[in-house]
Amino acid sequence: MAGSTFGTLFRVTTAGESHGPGNVCIVDGCPPGLELSIDDLIPDLQRRRPGQSRIVSPRKEEDAPEILSGVFEGKTTGTPIAILIRNQDQRSQDYGDIKDKYRPGHADFTFDAKFGFRDYRGGGRSSARETTVRVAAAAIAKKLLRVTHGIEVIGYVDQVGQLRAADIDPASVTLEQVESNPVRCPDAAMAMKMEELITEMRKQQDSIGGAATLVATGVPAGWGEPVFDKLKADLGKAMFSLPAVMGVEYGEGFGVATARGSEHCDTFIPADKTPPIGTNTNRHGGMLGGISSGMPIVLRCAVKPTSSIPQDRPTVDKHGKPTTIATRGRHDPCLLPRFVPMGEAMMALVLADHMLRQRAVANLT
Amino acid sequence: MAGSTFGTLFRVTTAGESHGPGNVCIVDGCPPGLELSIDDLIPDLQRRRPGQSRIVSPRKEEDAPEILSGVFEGKTTGTPIAILIRNQDQRSQDYGDIKDKYRPGHADFTFDAKFGFRDYRGGGRSSARETTVRVAAAAIAKKLLRVTHGIEVIGYVDQVGQLRAADIDPASVTLEQVESNPVRCPDAAMAMKMEELITEMRKQQDSIGGAATLVATGVPAGWGEPVFDKLKADLGKAMFSLPAVMGVEYGEGFGVATARGSEHCDTFIPADKTPPIGTNTNRHGGMLGGISSGMPIVLRCAVKPTSSIPQDRPTVDKHGKPTTIATRGRHDPCLLPRFVPMGEAMMALVLADHMLRQRAVANLT
Amino acid sequence: MAGSTFGTLFRVTTAGESHGPGNVCIVDGCPPGLELSIDDLIPDLQRRRPGQSRIVSPRKEEDAPEILSGVFEGKTTGTPIAILIRNQDQRSQDYGDIKDKYRPGHADFTFDAKFGFRDYRGGGRSSARETTVRVAAAAIAKKLLRVTHGIEVIGYVDQVGQLRAADIDPASVTLEQVESNPVRCPDAAMAMKMEELITEMRKQQDSIGGAATLVATGVPAGWGEPVFDKLKADLGKAMFSLPAVMGVEYGEGFGVATARGSEHCDTFIPADKTPPIGTNTNRHGGMLGGISSGMPIVLRCAVKPTSSIPQDRPTVDKHGKPTTIATRGRHDPCLLPRFVPMGEAMMALVLADHMLRQRAVANLT
Amino acid sequence: MAGSTFGTLFRVTTAGESHGPGNVCIVDGCPPGLELSIDDLIPDLQRRRPGQSRIVSPRKEEDAPEILSGVFEGKTTGTPIAILIRNQDQRSQDYGDIKDKYRPGHADFTFDAKFGFRDYRGGGRSSARETTVRVAAAAIAKKLLRVTHGIEVIGYVDQVGQLRAADIDPASVTLEQVESNPVRCPDAAMAMKMEELITEMRKQQDSIGGAATLVATGVPAGWGEPVFDKLKADLGKAMFSLPAVMGVEYGEGFGVATARGSEHCDTFIPADKTPPIGTNTNRHGGMLGGISSGMPIVLRCAVKPTSSIPQDRPTVDKHGKPTTIATRGRHDPCLLPRFVPMGEAMMALVLADHMLRQRAVANLT
Repeated sequence: MAGSTFGTLFRVTTAGESHGPGNVCIVDGCPPGLELSIDDLIPDLQRRRPGQSRIVSPRKEEDAPEILSGVFEGKTTGTPIAILIRNQDQRSQDYGDIKDKYRPGHADFTFDAKFGFRDYRGGGRSSARETTVRVAAAAIAKKLLRVTHGIEVIGYVDQVGQLRAADIDPASVTLEQVESNPVRCPDAAMAMKMEELITEMRKQQDSIGGAATLVATGVPAGWGEPVFDKLKADLGKAMFSLPAVMGVEYGEGFGVATARGSEHCDTFIPADKTPPIGTNTNRHGGMLGGISSGMPIVLRCAVKPTSSIPQDRPTVDKHGKPTTIATRGRHDPCLLPRFVPMGEAMMALVLADHMLRQRAVANLT
Repeated sequence: MAGSTFGTLFRVTTAGESHGPGNVCIVDGCPPGLELSIDDLIPDLQRRRPGQSRIVSPRKEEDAPEILSGVFEGKTTGTPIAILIRNQDQRSQDYGDIKDKYRPGHADFTFDAKFGFRDYRGGGRSSARETTVRVAAAAIAKKLLRVTHGIEVIGYVDQVGQLRAADIDPASVTLEQVESNPVRCPDAAMAMKMEELITEMRKQQDSIGGAATLVATGVPAGWGEPVFDKLKADLGKAMFSLPAVMGVEYGEGFGVATARGSEHCDTFIPADKTPPIGTNTNRHGGMLGGISSGMPIVLRCAVKPTSSIPQDRPTVDKHGKPTTIATRGRHDPCLLPRFVPMGEAMMALVLADHMLRQRAVANLT
Repeated sequence: MAGSTFGTLFRVTTAGESHGPGNVCIVDGCPPGLELSIDDLIPDLQRRRPGQSRIVSPRKEEDAPEILSGVFEGKTTGTPIAILIRNQDQRSQDYGDIKDKYRPGHADFTFDAKFGFRDYRGGGRSSARETTVRVAAAAIAKKLLRVTHGIEVIGYVDQVGQLRAADIDPASVTLEQVESNPVRCPDAAMAMKMEELITEMRKQQDSIGGAATLVATGVPAGWGEPVFDKLKADLGKAMFSLPAVMGVEYGEGFGVATARGSEHCDTFIPADKTPPIGTNTNRHGGMLGGISSGMPIVLRCAVKPTSSIPQDRPTVDKHGKPTTIATRGRHDPCLLPRFVPMGEAMMALVLADHMLRQRAVANLT
Repeated sequence: MAGSTFGTLFRVTTAGESHGPGNVCIVDGCPPGLELSIDDLIPDLQRRRPGQSRIVSPRKEEDAPEILSGVFEGKTTGTPIAILIRNQDQRSQDYGDIKDKYRPGHADFTFDAKFGFRDYRGGGRSSARETTVRVAAAAIAKKLLRVTHGIEVIGYVDQVGQLRAADIDPASVTLEQVESNPVRCPDAAMAMKMEELITEMRKQQDSIGGAATLVATGVPAGWGEPVFDKLKADLGKAMFSLPAVMGVEYGEGFGVATARGSEHCDTFIPADKTPPIGTNTNRHGGMLGGISSGMPIVLRCAVKPTSSIPQDRPTVDKHGKPTTIATRGRHDPCLLPRFVPMGEAMMALVLADHMLRQRAVANLT
C-alpha cells in the first residue's frame, strides 16, 4: 500500500473517497515565493467538475478548495501546501446493489480482493472524484512551470469513437480553442460531430471511448533521469495512474511499429534556442533517450468508455453468484471532455518534479 | 538525477555504460531462502544478447554474470544481491564522429544537454547494453514469482512493420513457441515472413519497427496500489523506461477509443479460483482500477525502428552546425526479437515488487 | 524540500503551521480492517496539548481531530486516512518583533536563510504545533501494533535539570504510573521535586531541559533493515525529527564509552518466546545489528530547555543588526511532560512501518 | 527489506558481505563534471582498513577499489558510479562455532531471527566490512562538498574509556592533527594515554568503548528539510546506521538536560558571511529547527566496545541451548580509530544529499 504519493521533489500525496467527508492533497516541495491563492486553483477545478456542460455528468459538485497551509501573505512559503475539497451531498443513499454486486468494468471486485472490503459509496477511492485534488495540486505545478520557464501544458480531445481530428498541430493548440466547445476538441467542426455522438450515446443509455492529446511547450532540453526515471517513463506512469486510461503513446506512437529507421528519425537542425539545436519534425514526441529534447512534448491517451451505464447487465455478487446490475446515477456518456484537465494535471506534476530534479545538479561543477 | 533505482520493496539499482568496464545491478529486497545460482540468470541473458541469431546484431558479448553478494550456500540470504557483467572488447576505437555529431534518433544530444558532456562510446549509458543487468535482476524476480505463486511472465513479437500476428491468444503462448524461431513470434508462419522482412531491411541498410505483447499468468487478484502506484501505472513506467518504446497499451488498448461501454466491459462470471470470480473475456487486460483482477495481465509495446542505420544522414554537430553522419557498426535491423526478454524483465520486476507490497498488509487484522 | 513524508510502507505526510487554518496528516499504508474512530486519537492528543496541567503552557487548543477519509463503517479501508485538526484562535496579532528579529535558539533565522522568508506567526512550520497531527497519526500506529502484536509503546520523563530518576525499570513502567502526575515521571517522589523545579523555572521567567525514556515492549525479534534502515537508524531519525531533541541513546547509551567488551555484552539465555532466546540484561537496548532482538526497545532523548522565555535578550534583526527581543506568550517552562506523547508517536510510526516491511518478506520461500 | 539505499538525490546503494566475493556500491546522482579517479578514494579507504597501525586489527585487506562506471576521461558523467572492492583471503575456514552459536553482542541471532539463516562467515552482511564501500562512496561526496562549497568534514576520537579529551575546539581541528597519531585524537598527550589503554585492553583480551566527534565546516545556512528530513534527523539516522553506535548528540548534547533556557541559547551576532549572521557560541551544534545555521555542524557518537573478544563466554546455540563461545580472530580492541573515517563518510553523504536538495529549489522564484 502507501501508493498515494507521487513525485520525488515536487511531491503530491492525496487522500479521499467519493462520498466521504472530502478529498485532501498535500503538495510538498513547492519552492517558496510563488504567488498563490485559491483563484489559481479554481479554473482547472471548474474544467474538471461535473455539471459544467450538457455532455457531462449533471451531478452538482461545487469543488470549493480551501488552502490549509504553506501559503502566507499570498505566497508559497516552501512548506507543504494542504488543500481540502469537501464533498457535498453526502446524503445516506441506497447503495445496496453496489455493496454486494460487482459492477462490470469497475474496481469494486478488485478492491474487495485487495482489501477484503471497501467503501462502496460511489466507487469510494476508485472514483474519479479522487482526481479533484490532483487537479488542484497541479494548478500549482502549472503556475510554477509557467512563471519560471514559460512552459504551457495543454490537452485536448482528438477522438471520440470513430470521429478523429487528425490534422491538429499539437504545438499550436491554444486554451481558447480547447475551451471554445464542451468537447474540448480544437477542431470546431469535428467538435460538433463529437458532441452529437456523445449526446446520442446518452440517449442510448450507452457510453463511448476516445482519446486525448497532451502537449507541453517550452520544456528545455535536458529533463528526465535515465534509466528508470526517464521523462517518458514518469509521464507514462502518471497517465496510467488516471482512471480509464488504457493506452499511452508518444509522438508517432504505435505508428512506429510500421516505420522504417530511414524515415522515422527526426533530423537535427540549427535552432534559435538554448542549446541551439532542434529537429525538423517531432515524430519523437519531444524526448530522446527519455530526456526532453527541447521540442514540444506530445503524448496521447486512449480512454475507455465509462463502465457506468444504466442498462441491466449480467455480473456476479461477492460470493461469485450470478446476478444482474445496472448503474443508476448521473454519469458521463464520454469521459474525454473531463479527462483533459486530469491529463494536463498529471503532465504538469511530472514536469515540475523533473524541473527541480534537474535544477539540483545542473551547472554545479 | 538518481534515476537508476526501480521498485519499492523488490528494488533494483543499476550502473554501467556500453563501453566502460562493466554493468552492475544491486537487487535489494529479495526474500531469503530462494535457491539461486548464475544458472538461473544465464538463459534470459542469452535471449537478450546480440549474436544469438542471424537477424540480430552480430556483436559478440559473452555476458557472463558474476554474483558478488547476497547468495550463500546456494540460497538468497535476504541481503542485497550484486551482479556484475563485465563488458568485453573495450578496445580503444575511433568514435570521433559520434563524439561531436549527434546521431538522429539517439540520445547523444539530450545527454549533452542534460549533463554537459557524455561517455560517447557506443551510446554510453543510453545504450541498450544497460538492460543486461536488468535482465539478470529480473531472472531472480521471475524465479521468485514462479516458486511462490506459479506466475509465468512471457513475451512475444506480434508485429514487425505491416506484418501483424493478430490471432494469438496471449494467455496460452508458451516459451517453447516463442523460442522456436529467431523472431520470437509464436505464429510460425508469420514468423517466417517477419524474418524475411527483417533480413530485407538489413540488406537495404535500414531498420523496421514493431510491437511485442507481454503476458503474466497466475497473478492473483489484489495486487497494485491505488492511486499512483496502480499496477498499470508501474507497468507503464517500467515499459517506457526501456529504450525505443513509444507506446504501451493494456488489453483492448487504443481500441477502446472506438468502443462503447455496453460492449467493452468484460462480464464477471463464477470461476474456479480464489476469489471465485473471473471475467468471460479479457478486454480489461487483467487489471481493474489498476489492481490485478486474477485474469492474465496483457500489455503491448510499440518499439521504434533502431535509429542506428549505416546510411549517411544530415544532422548537426554540438555547436548546431549542419553536417552528416552514418552509424557504422553492427546493429539490429529490428529491435523486437531482443526486446522480448527486456520487456519480460521489467514486467517481472514490477510484479515481484507488488507481490511484496501486497504481502505486507494482507490478512493482518 | 519535500521532507514532510515519513516511512516506507506505513507512511505519514504532514502539513500545517502554528497559526494557519490547521494541520493535516495523511496516513498512507494502514492495513484495512482496523477498527478506528476519533476516540482512538483523542487520548494522546489530550496528552500532547497545552493547557492540560499547571506546569505546561496555558494556551487553549481544543485539538479536535476530524477523519476525512480512509475509514468506513468504523474500520480502516486500506486507503489513506486524512486527519484535519484546525487551529483555533487565529486572531490577528502583533507579531512585529518576531517578523524582523531572530529569537535566540529558534528556527526563525534558519527558515529565512532557507526559504527567503517565513510564516512568522507563532513559529509557523517550525512550531511544535506541527506535532499534533504526528500524534494523531501515531495513535493509529499504536493501535495497529497493539492489536496485531500486543506491542505497547510508552514514554516517561526521567530527568528534569539535575533531577534524575535513575532507578526506573523501563520494561515495567505502566501508562497509569506515567499519567499519575503532570510531569509524566513514574517515580512519584521524584515527580514532585521535578514539578517544583519546573514551577520555580516559570517564576524565574526561565526554562529547563531534561530527558525522556521511550520503551516498546512486545516487539518480536527480526525487525529492522540493514544496513541503512536499521531499526536504530530509523528510530534515531524519528526522534531527531522532533523539535528540541539534542541527543538520542539506546540501552546503555553514552555509558558504552567507558565500558569494556567483557562487561558490556548481554548474555544470550534460553527464553520462553519465539525464537526461544533472550538476554539476561538489556544493555543493548533491544536491537543488535540494528535488528530487534525481542527484548524491550529502550531509548532516551535529551530535550533542550525551550528557547521561548520572556526575558529580554540580545539578538540581531534580519539584516544582521544588533537588537534585543523577549518572547512574550504562554510557553512551557519545561518541554518534557508534553514531549512524552510526541516521542511515543515517532517510535510507534517507526515500528508500524518496520512491522509491515518485515511482513512483506517473512516466511515466503 | 530493501534497506541498502541511502539518500534522496545523492544516493548510495551498497551490497556485499564480509567473506563473499566483494563489496559494491552504486553512487547515483553525483553531478557531472567532477574530476574523479581511484586516487580520490584510496586515502579514506586506507584510514578505514585494518592493519594500518599497531592498535587496530592486524587483518590484511588491501581494499583496492575499481570504478566500474560513471567516470569518463577523468570526470564524473552524471550517471551512476559503481565501485567494486573485492574481498581477499576467502579461504575456506572453520566457522563451525559461529554457524550454530550466537556471539554475545553480535547480530548473529537477530539475522537468524529475521532471515531464517545467514552467511555466518565473518559476520556476513552485519560485518563492518560493509562500510568499506560507504567510505569509498563518501570520498566522492567529500570531494563534491569541498570543490563546490569549500566544506570540510572531519572526525576525531575524543574519548576512550575514562580518558576524555574535553578541551578540543571542534571547529579548528585539522586532518593533520587527527592523523598524527594512531588513535586519531588531536590532543597528542591524551592520544598517548589512549593508545596505552587500548594496548592494555588487547593484552587483557578485552575491548573498550569510546566516543568520536564529527565536524563539518563551511556548510551554508539553509540546508535541511523540515519536518522529517531535518539535517539533524538525517545525520542521526546516518550515524546510527553504523555498527556499534549507541548514542548521538549535537552541540551541547545530553548536557542540555541540565541547562536553563537563559543560559543555553547561543546569541545571534553580526558576522562576515552570507547571510551576515552568526552566533557567539555553538551550543546548538550548527543546526536550528533542523536546518543548518552556518555555524560548524558538530555531533558526537558513542561507540561500544567491540563484542569480539577472545575470552570464553556463555551464550546459547540457535535452538536456545546454553553453550560457550570465544571469538578467535584478529579484532580491534577499540573501534574508535577506525570509526572516524566511517563517521565522516556518513556525514559527507548526508551533506551532499542536502546540498542537492536545497539547490533544487533555492532562488527559483
